Amino acid sequence: MSGIFGINIKMSIFGESHGASIGLVIDGLPPGLALDTELIAREMARRAPGKNNLSTPRKEADNFQIQSGFFNGYTTGTPLCAIIANSDQHSKDYSILKDKMRPGHADYAGYVHYQGYNDYRGGGHFSGRLTAPLVFMGAVAKQALAQQGITVGAHILQIADIKEEHFNPMGIDDIILTKLSEKTFCVLDDAAGEKMQQRILAAKAELNSVGGVVEAIVQHLPAGIGAPYFDSLESRLSHALFSVPAVKGVEFGDGFALAELTGAEANDQLHYAEGRVTACSNHNGGITGGISNGMPVIFRTAIKPTPSIARKQQTISLLQQCDTELEITGRHDPCIVQRAVPVIEAVTAWTVWDLLLEAKKWER
Amino acid sequence: MSGIFGINIKMSIFGESHGASIGLVIDGLPPGLALDTELIAREMARRAPGKNNLSTPRKEADNFQIQSGFFNGYTTGTPLCAIIANSDQHSKDYSILKDKMRPGHADYAGYVHYQGYNDYRGGGHFSGRLTAPLVFMGAVAKQALAQQGITVGAHILQIADIKEEHFNPMGIDDIILTKLSEKTFCVLDDAAGEKMQQRILAAKAELNSVGGVVEAIVQHLPAGIGAPYFDSLESRLSHALFSVPAVKGVEFGDGFALAELTGAEANDQLHYAEGRVTACSNHNGGITGGISNGMPVIFRTAIKPTPSIARKQQTISLLQQCDTELEITGRHDPCIVQRAVPVIEAVTAWTVWDLLLEAKKWER
Amino acid sequence: MSGIFGINIKMSIFGESHGASIGLVIDGLPPGLALDTELIAREMARRAPGKNNLSTPRKEADNFQIQSGFFNGYTTGTPLCAIIANSDQHSKDYSILKDKMRPGHADYAGYVHYQGYNDYRGGGHFSGRLTAPLVFMGAVAKQALAQQGITVGAHILQIADIKEEHFNPMGIDDIILTKLSEKTFCVLDDAAGEKMQQRILAAKAELNSVGGVVEAIVQHLPAGIGAPYFDSLESRLSHALFSVPAVKGVEFGDGFALAELTGAEANDQLHYAEGRVTACSNHNGGITGGISNGMPVIFRTAIKPTPSIARKQQTISLLQQCDTELEITGRHDPCIVQRAVPVIEAVTAWTVWDLLLEAKKWER
Amino acid sequence: MSGIFGINIKMSIFGESHGASIGLVIDGLPPGLALDTELIAREMARRAPGKNNLSTPRKEADNFQIQSGFFNGYTTGTPLCAIIANSDQHSKDYSILKDKMRPGHADYAGYVHYQGYNDYRGGGHFSGRLTAPLVFMGAVAKQALAQQGITVGAHILQIADIKEEHFNPMGIDDIILTKLSEKTFCVLDDAAGEKMQQRILAAKAELNSVGGVVEAIVQHLPAGIGAPYFDSLESRLSHALFSVPAVKGVEFGDGFALAELTGAEANDQLHYAEGRVTACSNHNGGITGGISNGMPVIFRTAIKPTPSIARKQQTISLLQQCDTELEITGRHDPCIVQRAVPVIEAVTAWTVWDLLLEAKKWER
Repeated sequence: MSGIFGINIKMSIFGESHGASIGLVIDGLPPGLALDTELIAREMARRAPGKNNLSTPRKEADNFQIQSGFFNGYTTGTPLCAIIANSDQHSKDYSILKDKMRPGHADYAGYVHYQGYNDYRGGGHFSGRLTAPLVFMGAVAKQALAQQGITVGAHILQIADIKEEHFNPMGIDDIILTKLSEKTFCVLDDAAGEKMQQRILAAKAELNSVGGVVEAIVQHLPAGIGAPYFDSLESRLSHALFSVPAVKGVEFGDGFALAELTGAEANDQLHYAEGRVTACSNHNGGITGGISNGMPVIFRTAIKPTPSIARKQQTISLLQQCDTELEITGRHDPCIVQRAVPVIEAVTAWTVWDLLLEAKKWER
Repeated sequence: MSGIFGINIKMSIFGESHGASIGLVIDGLPPGLALDTELIAREMARRAPGKNNLSTPRKEADNFQIQSGFFNGYTTGTPLCAIIANSDQHSKDYSILKDKMRPGHADYAGYVHYQGYNDYRGGGHFSGRLTAPLVFMGAVAKQALAQQGITVGAHILQIADIKEEHFNPMGIDDIILTKLSEKTFCVLDDAAGEKMQQRILAAKAELNSVGGVVEAIVQHLPAGIGAPYFDSLESRLSHALFSVPAVKGVEFGDGFALAELTGAEANDQLHYAEGRVTACSNHNGGITGGISNGMPVIFRTAIKPTPSIARKQQTISLLQQCDTELEITGRHDPCIVQRAVPVIEAVTAWTVWDLLLEAKKWER
Repeated sequence: MSGIFGINIKMSIFGESHGASIGLVIDGLPPGLALDTELIAREMARRAPGKNNLSTPRKEADNFQIQSGFFNGYTTGTPLCAIIANSDQHSKDYSILKDKMRPGHADYAGYVHYQGYNDYRGGGHFSGRLTAPLVFMGAVAKQALAQQGITVGAHILQIADIKEEHFNPMGIDDIILTKLSEKTFCVLDDAAGEKMQQRILAAKAELNSVGGVVEAIVQHLPAGIGAPYFDSLESRLSHALFSVPAVKGVEFGDGFALAELTGAEANDQLHYAEGRVTACSNHNGGITGGISNGMPVIFRTAIKPTPSIARKQQTISLLQQCDTELEITGRHDPCIVQRAVPVIEAVTAWTVWDLLLEAKKWER
Repeated sequence: MSGIFGINIKMSIFGESHGASIGLVIDGLPPGLALDTELIAREMARRAPGKNNLSTPRKEADNFQIQSGFFNGYTTGTPLCAIIANSDQHSKDYSILKDKMRPGHADYAGYVHYQGYNDYRGGGHFSGRLTAPLVFMGAVAKQALAQQGITVGAHILQIADIKEEHFNPMGIDDIILTKLSEKTFCVLDDAAGEKMQQRILAAKAELNSVGGVVEAIVQHLPAGIGAPYFDSLESRLSHALFSVPAVKGVEFGDGFALAELTGAEANDQLHYAEGRVTACSNHNGGITGGISNGMPVIFRTAIKPTPSIARKQQTISLLQQCDTELEITGRHDPCIVQRAVPVIEAVTAWTVWDLLLEAKKWER
């Protein structure tokens, strides 16, 4: 029941959407890492809502305040705590959330888990707002990875039934990743992106919501990172990815499509290219035996449609112990896929950095 | 780089396919659990090869010897070590594995990770044989779960392009699960199973291999198990599942198909049934907010085609540092999906038990 | 290099004495624990300096602000973060601490460990102020233990060469423990306490400092808590106790004096008293085989004299890379033993609670 | 309730004295460490009983068999399991141990902890025999430390009331440590050692036992190893040391004697010696702020007298639920201090190596 994860870079997250603040403590940060707080703020802004009509109009400034572990522009090596004050709270009556369990939400499972003591206002600890600390963590990790030439990027592969092209599994130009990260709606093909956005707005108009798929890539990761079994790159990445609310599927390389390939098709044959061992294809998504093999690490993450919809839904009343109906009012995201992109990049960067530090132990 | 996993029930696995033995240590086992070693042997036999022409003809008896932690038919509460001696070793020359990296295998990634010191014979620590300890662990966990009325089962949903029907997400008769577990080829529909087996034999005849999808279910798990974020049921299950060699995708509930549903379709509405909170559908696979919600937990796991194929493949020679070709000789599985079924059940049972113990801490 | 500890109740501490705040995140707190924040404040006040001329005149209000995990008077079961703002900071020049390493302090070891990046102002992360979060944790744990009838107390056994009587190892009246905790200077015998205080003031007058020994007791802890080997009650208590700055020795029961006893003297013989298994003596301090045996848990902790003294001392200049002299100015404690008492109680209460939760997993 | 410890080098121990075998799994071992199994056997022999009349005449060959993780003379980087078969078992009736709880032993505490299911034969999991795996681990760690020039040694400082001189806290000749380790009775001064041995034999003649103190030293450990708070060198060493059965006290540097020193006396002043920062004294035992400061790490460990004595003792009968008397028959150690020396060295070497690997993560 832990809000702590990581082997070498441990993150402890805390907070409820209507408490004093949300935040994180990062433990194990190497000293002497120059942190650009502007870059962190930019990553946080990518996740923040209220930018356009695709997401909730809630304004969450997501201004963070570093409390510790950062001195004169560098990490100190001691735990870094950052808090994000909760400011844009409507002082409305949330007691309905205590009674009527929202379908598709954590409400009922959380009620049982926390024995009825959890802060139900605005989803409390389950609020999507808790992904802000994840993005903070990722922004730190990206800066550490950048020093080693490793890049992390992601795009919206699919919204509802509208898809765009996949990343080239053999790798793509890092400039494309940079450009992607600067877009409000992260797609390679803006025409496809336009259709996706129309699909989101159509769902919104129908008091409905849509889901999608995010594809991510890690480039220039050296071979040898990860481990067989419980610290496999896939195990640790999926662990972190499924920690992101609304994620319901993760696949590496060709993933579920591998079930339909033969060994002759799926095996990535090897050759030397410029003196370096390279694969001729990348069906395995850069990971074999749980360990990076020098090819780009590629995976896709399925995001379910936002469960908060304004339509009337059937549910139960805990107080009355009877069936009832519910109409969720308030400000909601008709789709969270576009806001999930920086979160997925973040947990990816964090996990990869964590495993790179693991490999340092064995350096000679 | 850890061969240890688990919060309360920690497993430490060890061994190489051509060392003295492989095995495991289970740490945290409650005392007084009556263990039926016959049941353990039966589960181990489900995974063992050599039963028919669908898998490698290697005979691996997988006879285990409990070293500790078990006394007078009960667990003692101290660490339980079991070892499985390696007996059916061909004293053949394995030095080719040191030189020519098998495509699709861990060979190259492992070579880099272990800096060339790993035991390459028969795949060494990466050998599929290491899943035997996982099955042992699972057989213990299943007995603990059975005392609480919780059942775990799985079937082969797909081999190559041949599929059978899904589990009913609202739950199935436990007797069906028992019958499934007694089959050599675990399918609900034996006619479909027959086609799948033909597909495997066809691949074998072509010196090729095929992959597939395994669907698993956990029934009668109470609501409230798991946690948001890093100890989510999905995070911990996926972590364990991706530790199983050849797993490349995991999806819960409708998984990737959720990307194409709207919120109105995907939300599992709630009602009271016989005084119990129940969902009207189960698109979320029994998990919301990372926590079990009382519905069956359902997920699918993609298994890639066995990388060991007898066809000539392009690869590299580490010794010569040049491109070369490789024909893998020896005894191989044209498909490992059918043998992966008990392994997937095993890591599932283990993880679920581990999280049930977590919930005990908060019992009043 | 972790600021996180605990099996079930994990604490993550953070902060530097001159950063924005110091604080902690408690992870794994059971939901529904009624927390009396007044009691927490009272414990914090016990540790706070500035109460009399025995300690530094610095005023540290140690006002904590709970950020999360606490709702309507109860713990929610989600991570509880509390921060303590740093207010009484003198804007003086701390650059000398960057250059001249204070003898007996962490300065030089910390400089090497953090590669020169640590916040040196006021000792930074090494500041005794970081024990405030430990006391907060302990105040929460004491409230949980109180519900189970378990009490934790401590007294100053020794200051320099002045000692008072030991706790009766067979147990003492809980009212005595309560009274002890209400004293500013926690001794059983106030006359002895008066002499100890004179000794401290004498050291202060001589620009010197003194150390001492704290003896702690845990009463009404049931038998069976702890484990052999790595989770022994002694291992976990000592781990936590040596985390408290200035602690240099820990001994359980008769401790080092056991080296001079024979087995016949040291063995605590057993008998039934009122139907309960009881020992006739308590040389083992309530712990045998790493596990509580139902007798009071007793141990002593050696605290070294405060290294900050105003006398001229020989040291090195890192900047000049030469030998030099140092006179530490500012406000310092001539003795920290009296302020260490609530800290030792705190880590004890935390550890005992953590292991009690561990035992819950095995409850039937 | 874990038999697993370590951050980077994790050890999982298992076994009961009358089960099939005892052993360990070492997880996280770097690949490519050349292991001299002769050296391991020599360390194991130092701990083994039956060498003379000072310890139990039981012959325990302690022959280990490495199962995994070791190939062609080098560690592979995969988990290393070693087992030690239990051979010299008397097939005698152990049922008295199930009934009459031996004073000073773990019997009663273990009975409660394991709910009566533990293997009581010969002490089961609590048997001192379980220290053999610790010595194996230490023998591996010592070989890794030797590559970095770090040495670990220990001597018997005290048996009952007979003491010899302390290690020079400023460091001693490594040759002296080597010679010490080759002695059957590890003392600096053989005349004092002779008196100690006479004291042990006198206790034996009286059907009694004696305890003592072991002093250990780690030399050439670089400054910067360890951390403040929960991974302090003192926390981690004491955690490991108190895992060794019979240890009841641990003190670093001057330890409890620091309570009687003033700050002016206890502070280790600094100067440059041959261009290196060095302390002028070593009252802090080489550790300040939880971190090594470049001076030798010195500490003492109190060992209680063996609780197994042949004299009649008062105890309880669990079966009859009444008071009774007990005479422990069989072969016992009148003193275990001399056998504890290699065990203390072992857990020290392991812990120091573990923290050295921790420091590697931050290397530039």
